[in-house]
Amino acid sequence: MTAEKSRLVETEIHRIMHEQGNAVRARDVEGVMSNCAPDILSFDVVGGLRKIGIDERRKRAEEWFSSFQGEIRYELRDLNIAADDDVAFCHSLNHVHGTMKDGQKIDMWWRATVCFRKTTGRWLINHEHSSVPFDANSGKARLDLKP
Amino acid sequence: MTAEKSRLVETEIHRIMHEQGNAVRARDVEGVMSNCAPDILSFDVVGGLRKIGIDERRKRAEEWFSSFQGEIRYELRDLNIAADDDVAFCHSLNHVHGTMKDGQKIDMWWRATVCFRKTTGRWLINHEHSSVPFDANSGKARLDLKP
Repeated sequence: MTAEKSRLVETEIHRIMHEQGNAVRARDVEGVMSNCAPDILSFDVVGGLRKIGIDERRKRAEEWFSSFQGEIRYELRDLNIAADDDVAFCHSLNHVHGTMKDGQKIDMWWRATVCFRKTTGRWLINHEHSSVPFDANSGKARLDLKP
Repeated sequence: MTAEKSRLVETEIHRIMHEQGNAVRARDVEGVMSNCAPDILSFDVVGGLRKIGIDERRKRAEEWFSSFQGEIRYELRDLNIAADDDVAFCHSLNHVHGTMKDGQKIDMWWRATVCFRKTTGRWLINHEHSSVPFDANSGKARLDLKP
């Protein structure tokens, strides 16, 4: 792949990630799902080991968005992209800031890896992995970390 | 990329992941590191948000291997690979089973995403993300999950 082609693909992945960010801030479930492959495999921050397929992913987005009251403030930091003709991945540190429906304030960073495949001419998210590390002594998830 | 070329690359990624598994079981730090890029970025199961570069990654491998007594039993399940000419990723559920130096038994599954770039003709791990989810009610990492 030429350097120029590589830059073009990186720009496209960057655009999709930006679009995903806008969809999260707008609580737009179908906006988020529009970039996901039907057979997406998700490793999520909470819950079970994995979510298989777009229906489980959609359910999770619906639950997450509806757990907030008011604005979801959401940003990606240190987004790094590697892209080839038909396979790409990126990683970033993601930050969410807002108020849950039960009044609890959320101000949390997590790690995100998003993996793409190009299928029938279109880039789709094939796999994503979001998490926080845990503290080995307390067994607690580390929700207080900042980059 | 042709289907045949894609299969060849997938076979190579599979070989590297198998080699990594053997290195973990043998507690062979340099064996694990030999497939890592100098600028590898790791999102690890425990500790901070990220580890930057091969020196931090090596230190973590040394600490982890030396925390076990006796055999480290280690397996990958549902390894799924996507590969192009110069970029690839894979994900799996990983299982470790053994006894720590303090006598504690470990029998734990986690999620792993491993991302590769081909540089100067050789595939190296450029990014890896390992985690367990946490329970949103207790805030505890879920170390008891099984696929």
